[in-house]
Amino acid sequence: MLTSSMEDYLEKIYELMREKGYARVSDIASSLSVQPSSVTKMIQKLDEKKLVTYEKYRGIVLTAKGEHLGKLMKQRHKRLEEFLRMLRIKEETIQNDVEGIEHHVSPATMNALNNLVLFFQQNTDCLQEFNTFCDELEELNQDLDSSNQ
Amino acid sequence: MLTSSMEDYLEKIYELMREKGYARVSDIASSLSVQPSSVTKMIQKLDEKKLVTYEKYRGIVLTAKGEHLGKLMKQRHKRLEEFLRMLRIKEETIQNDVEGIEHHVSPATMNALNNLVLFFQQNTDCLQEFNTFCDELEELNQDLDSSNQ
Ligand SMILES: [Mn+2]
Ligand SMILES: [Mn+2]
Repeated sequence: MLTSSMEDYLEKIYELMREKGYARVSDIASSLSVQPSSVTKMIQKLDEKKLVTYEKYRGIVLTAKGEHLGKLMKQRHKRLEEFLRMLRIKEETIQNDVEGIEHHVSPATMNALNNLVLFFQQNTDCLQEFNTFCDELEELNQDLDSSNQ
Repeated sequence: MLTSSMEDYLEKIYELMREKGYARVSDIASSLSVQPSSVTKMIQKLDEKKLVTYEKYRGIVLTAKGEHLGKLMKQRHKRLEEFLRMLRIKEETIQNDVEGIEHHVSPATMNALNNLVLFFQQNTDCLQEFNTFCDELEELNQDLDSSNQ
């Protein structure tokens, strides 16, 4: 079992390796807003789980299994973002929610949410109807609020 | 700020009070699968936050604020369940996912998910189209799997 924190590290190391070709302790620390000493400890744990190794000149490197998992974490994060973006959630709220939700979404639920995004992308009339439905609900709520004041 | 654990306790105490009229330490402990000593510690924390009080003959009682929050937790839990049930997720997976997700869903996202449930309930043609879409995707995936064997 991976902890939420391990999942965040794998996602971040995967991201850094894709962007820069390597992942340094200092880069991981600054992008996760943690102390370098915490990164070092976590790297040891991930090493014990055979998800990363340390190579003398390249630094921290994901194993095949680590890369597979990091890619899954990254994909899950991106797909949850897309889902919430489709629901017209504010960008800041999306980032907050996804950072928490991602660690608790089963593959079955993730698949269903992704299907929902694909469905609305291909059936824009349904998406349009849904957006109108939301706008009407919001107007109703605003009317109720102002009549209660 | 409430921790995930505090949210679980408030939800459970609210539930017990609605069902039985009171919440005993032993009932809370068994329904959350924790030790009675953990319940006692948490009740102290919730007491400091003025969310529960201890009354000599009634036992643990939610304050008005505690009851308001407990009700919100319970509602959020139920609505997330409804949402995942609409997506045809297995009951066991629903319970697991909701226990984790609920603590990380912002009010804005919760509202949007609830709108989605209401929308599909009122637009059953869209829901039907979505279900067909999912079934077709699944068939395609099964075909791909079997042709890869
Ligand atoms: Mn993430
Ligand atoms: Mn719950």
